Amino acid sequence: MTEQKKQPKGVSRRGLLGGTAKAATLAGLGGAAAAAGVGSLVGGGALAPRAAKAAEANVAPGDLDEYYGFWSSGQTGEVRILGIPSMRELMRIPVFNRCSATGWGQTNESLKILTEGLLPETKEYLASHGGVWHNGDAHHPHMSFTDGTYDGRYLFINDKANTRVARIRCDVMKCDKIVEIPNAADIHGMRPQKFPRTGYIFANGEHRIPIPNDGKILDEPEKYASIFTALDGDTMKVAWQVIVDGNLDNCDADYQGLYAFSTCYNSEGGVTLAEMTANEQDWAVVFDIKRIEAAVAEGKFEEISGVPVLDGRKGSPFTRYIPISNSPHGCNTAPDGRHVVINGKLSPTVSVIDVTKLPEVFDDKIEPRGCIVAEPELGLGPLHTAFDDKGNAYTTLFLDSQVAKWSMEKAIQAFKGEDVDPILQKVDVQYQPGHNHASMGETKESDGKWLVSLNKFSKDRFLNVGPLKPENEQLIDISGDEMKVVHDGPTFAEPHDCIIVRADILDPLPVWDRNDPTWEEARNWAEEDGIDLEGAAEVVRKAEDKVRVYMHSVAPNFSLEKFTVKQGDEVTLVVTNIDDVDDLTHGFTLANYGVAFEIGPQATASVTFKADRPGVHWFYCQWFCHALHMEMRGRMLVEPRAV
Amino acid sequence: MTEQKKQPKGVSRRGLLGGTAKAATLAGLGGAAAAAGVGSLVGGGALAPRAAKAAEANVAPGDLDEYYGFWSSGQTGEVRILGIPSMRELMRIPVFNRCSATGWGQTNESLKILTEGLLPETKEYLASHGGVWHNGDAHHPHMSFTDGTYDGRYLFINDKANTRVARIRCDVMKCDKIVEIPNAADIHGMRPQKFPRTGYIFANGEHRIPIPNDGKILDEPEKYASIFTALDGDTMKVAWQVIVDGNLDNCDADYQGLYAFSTCYNSEGGVTLAEMTANEQDWAVVFDIKRIEAAVAEGKFEEISGVPVLDGRKGSPFTRYIPISNSPHGCNTAPDGRHVVINGKLSPTVSVIDVTKLPEVFDDKIEPRGCIVAEPELGLGPLHTAFDDKGNAYTTLFLDSQVAKWSMEKAIQAFKGEDVDPILQKVDVQYQPGHNHASMGETKESDGKWLVSLNKFSKDRFLNVGPLKPENEQLIDISGDEMKVVHDGPTFAEPHDCIIVRADILDPLPVWDRNDPTWEEARNWAEEDGIDLEGAAEVVRKAEDKVRVYMHSVAPNFSLEKFTVKQGDEVTLVVTNIDDVDDLTHGFTLANYGVAFEIGPQATASVTFKADRPGVHWFYCQWFCHALHMEMRGRMLVEPRAV
Repeated sequence: MTEQKKQPKGVSRRGLLGGTAKAATLAGLGGAAAAAGVGSLVGGGALAPRAAKAAEANVAPGDLDEYYGFWSSGQTGEVRILGIPSMRELMRIPVFNRCSATGWGQTNESLKILTEGLLPETKEYLASHGGVWHNGDAHHPHMSFTDGTYDGRYLFINDKANTRVARIRCDVMKCDKIVEIPNAADIHGMRPQKFPRTGYIFANGEHRIPIPNDGKILDEPEKYASIFTALDGDTMKVAWQVIVDGNLDNCDADYQGLYAFSTCYNSEGGVTLAEMTANEQDWAVVFDIKRIEAAVAEGKFEEISGVPVLDGRKGSPFTRYIPISNSPHGCNTAPDGRHVVINGKLSPTVSVIDVTKLPEVFDDKIEPRGCIVAEPELGLGPLHTAFDDKGNAYTTLFLDSQVAKWSMEKAIQAFKGEDVDPILQKVDVQYQPGHNHASMGETKESDGKWLVSLNKFSKDRFLNVGPLKPENEQLIDISGDEMKVVHDGPTFAEPHDCIIVRADILDPLPVWDRNDPTWEEARNWAEEDGIDLEGAAEVVRKAEDKVRVYMHSVAPNFSLEKFTVKQGDEVTLVVTNIDDVDDLTHGFTLANYGVAFEIGPQATASVTFKADRPGVHWFYCQWFCHALHMEMRGRMLVEPRAV
Repeated sequence: MTEQKKQPKGVSRRGLLGGTAKAATLAGLGGAAAAAGVGSLVGGGALAPRAAKAAEANVAPGDLDEYYGFWSSGQTGEVRILGIPSMRELMRIPVFNRCSATGWGQTNESLKILTEGLLPETKEYLASHGGVWHNGDAHHPHMSFTDGTYDGRYLFINDKANTRVARIRCDVMKCDKIVEIPNAADIHGMRPQKFPRTGYIFANGEHRIPIPNDGKILDEPEKYASIFTALDGDTMKVAWQVIVDGNLDNCDADYQGLYAFSTCYNSEGGVTLAEMTANEQDWAVVFDIKRIEAAVAEGKFEEISGVPVLDGRKGSPFTRYIPISNSPHGCNTAPDGRHVVINGKLSPTVSVIDVTKLPEVFDDKIEPRGCIVAEPELGLGPLHTAFDDKGNAYTTLFLDSQVAKWSMEKAIQAFKGEDVDPILQKVDVQYQPGHNHASMGETKESDGKWLVSLNKFSKDRFLNVGPLKPENEQLIDISGDEMKVVHDGPTFAEPHDCIIVRADILDPLPVWDRNDPTWEEARNWAEEDGIDLEGAAEVVRKAEDKVRVYMHSVAPNFSLEKFTVKQGDEVTLVVTNIDDVDDLTHGFTLANYGVAFEIGPQATASVTFKADRPGVHWFYCQWFCHALHMEMRGRMLVEPRAV
């Protein structure tokens, strides 16, 4: 490896130490590097020892990965599929973003998904503001469960920016539903019900707002509330909501189908940083699903914005508030089916809830903290915890830039007063880890092979690419006694969270099924117009200023070499790709009209636009498909209207 | 590696062979696999022998890559920075796309770049169609040159979809200029002048259209033309244009600053596939830069759409048409400074132009084909050629799914009639390669270390991710006598082209310079309003329905905990990130308003929107910055207007 020619300006850990991280570590300067981060909440932690097993994560050309990784992309608004252990990006799934390549946010099929689940007031707002959101802040991707493990049906993901939850079909790896959650602001924590199946998607409305938020209440924070939502994962309709105290952060579900859990910070109900962090203790709130369902069944709810809302604030039968030290963050159910780890964030501890004690808590037979069975002190800034199949837990330490491996059993023994140290090992990560995730780690089939640490800062780990740096997701081998960092993976803003799913659980379709519901509307148009989509080459005028253009594609041809419309026409283009060869995707770009979309093998896609620009406009296939790909094109001739 | 549980439906090469590609190859079935692709223009080629040196491309945690790779993203509309040889994506640079994470396409600063270089008629069209294109088809990323090699100033990239060329500043790795090219349709081939410097950006308008394209001429293809553009890379203004015969495909420049070259297909001037491929020969067109500059200087041009246009059709003094077999595609100048390789596409040959013979061609002393000094037959579907530092060339064979390594010297000897075989080796790639590129290969400093083959199909090389598959960019070690495929890299649509730049050539800024011109407009607003951007925490009402909100950020605080506006106000938010720590980017998301953008360390960014939704709206930092990142937020209170 070559050294960087010049040191970047300003303080750089690599610069400070001289040369590469490797050189620094070999020189035994890890301690000094760590010291450089002391005293700053945003400084990096210690440098990692160089991985001796780096080659293990390498997947040779022609070999397949063992796991699918599903990555939220954070602010990018998409979902990414990675191969594990290669950490290669296998696919991007547009969800909350506008995708130039696939036409997501432009095709009629995607616009339907992006708009039909929005609240009426949002639809009204967007009607005069571009019709659709072009951004999202995707945090937590989680797969549907059956009986405590992934079932390969769906992936769900939240959007914090515009208060939505989306669903991705795992047979085609495309988003099929997006719903906006009423009465909530800014969906953050989100997890599926693990048992008996998904079932519910639990979704945390993080920010406290007036309900309804119509401007009548403004600067009266004491009247704000946050809300917990159970969405039906099959129908994507809200089943019920519960109003709670505090800001809802992360959540998880148990393996019995009885309880859900959310961490809460800002028990103070404050609106400034000082107010929000004033108290020594906040809480985790536990939801009793059976009591809530019974109340909803009995009609004991208030209907707000068309959904049943229960009051779960302190004193309610539906919830219990378990005191936890200042501002807990991560919430992770262990695969032992019994323990839930609440991560301290501003406290150096994690608190372990034993779910078998919760009936007594709800029956007020024991104090809320009576369900806490361990509370090990792990280090500074514990944010999230992952699990292996041997009873061990792996907690990210944001401020220490480390992952701590600890024993659940020893932590419980220590809490009982035994003289044991639950911490087994700490490994440095680069830098400031947030979420982490182990292979199959949030299921009862947790297998203890790989751990991914999603780090918020990469700093000097990669070639400098300017003021905006990638994040760094690191792959850690946890199959042996010692954790080993085997791969550094830069990623664009931001790898917020991920799951790691055994490859045999998924079996996506190689090409589309012609009966897929995605293009139901186009199928209806074709029927109405007497068109055979698979053989179409027709222009159907529907009105004086409205035309439908049907064509099909087979490499290297579109079935229409040209079509003519009038300036000002509303044109609906319907294109069907009848190629059925694996990987033979076509594209349709209408140049200088801003129109471009993907048509997968055996798929139909459509777009509607106004032909306001007269002249000759070429359309072409932008998905390289054939030796004569460049010649796969045609012309839209737009006749000027008489002025 | 685990085997896939189920075989995908339909014909799959991996399925056909049973098990992994590795197993298939070890079983000696490469030939059978190749046979399976025969007879189909879209079938895959043979399976590659498993790379013995796979680990070589692995860059261990803490080590740095040796090269920056700049990747076009094809239809995704962005530019990507990869590290080579790790092939990891280090950054995405939004260019022609809408980026949810950075707010590209939403911030005032990006909207200025996306709109100010558009043609008046496009601005007029977009005024009633969303104001901005949200898509692009980015093909050819190339760096600015000085004296025949990269100078690290700029990167340029074309947009075929909406006829644009963009420039990226390599000090901050952000796009700073986008211009629409007049009189052209769909910019395809694009290369910078290599000598004496860039200087010109040569850009091919691929599709033939009426000039002007205003609807007066429609289905009269004989009146269409395509146009070659020289853009000034410093000013991003069109210097001159030349009308040519045929469809302009790819282009390149010489090392002397005298000539530019474009491949042309469709010499027939046809509009259907049959018409476009009727002739046995098309051509490469050579442009005499000095003659063109002289004519422009003497005013011997027609001004169309405000730029000087010369007629370079057959018979013109400005061009020569070198006959080349059917539909040549790639156009690549060799680092020897003398030879230009024209790639045959539908012909199995590549044709080598000797630039020292071009003066005689232009002076009509020799026939146009008199400049051809070699024409080796390499295989089926030669598309693009890369070069090492030892006189060897590497040509992608689309139909054969191979890269052919050949000797320039031997090809010239063979053309002279000597009995030598110029082909040194062929290596299988997976599958259907388009562009390829060698490290520093398009400069005089070509170093022969790495070759990347950008393959259009990946099929069975990765875990199946549904009907849409990634492409596959493969890294090939060319440092020894034998080419070796060492890494398979899946990428999202599509890795159209790339360059590989020695790391020492670039030295990006670690944080922004406060004097950066990007936020000039915000600086002017602040001056007008008497605001200090770095310390701002002010709301300035500019009119009854117009307000400017200034704040700064320092982790974990925005300087305004709340601000109040009236429903219907046009709000301009200006946020300055005064953190100066490497990698400490903040974000600003205004929830349920579709507003989200990046603010790099020491940067200012702004957005303007209409506050049409009354109520309490939280804004928050979406770029994880601090242990108290979740608490870094505030409220926009929107007072309802009296109805």
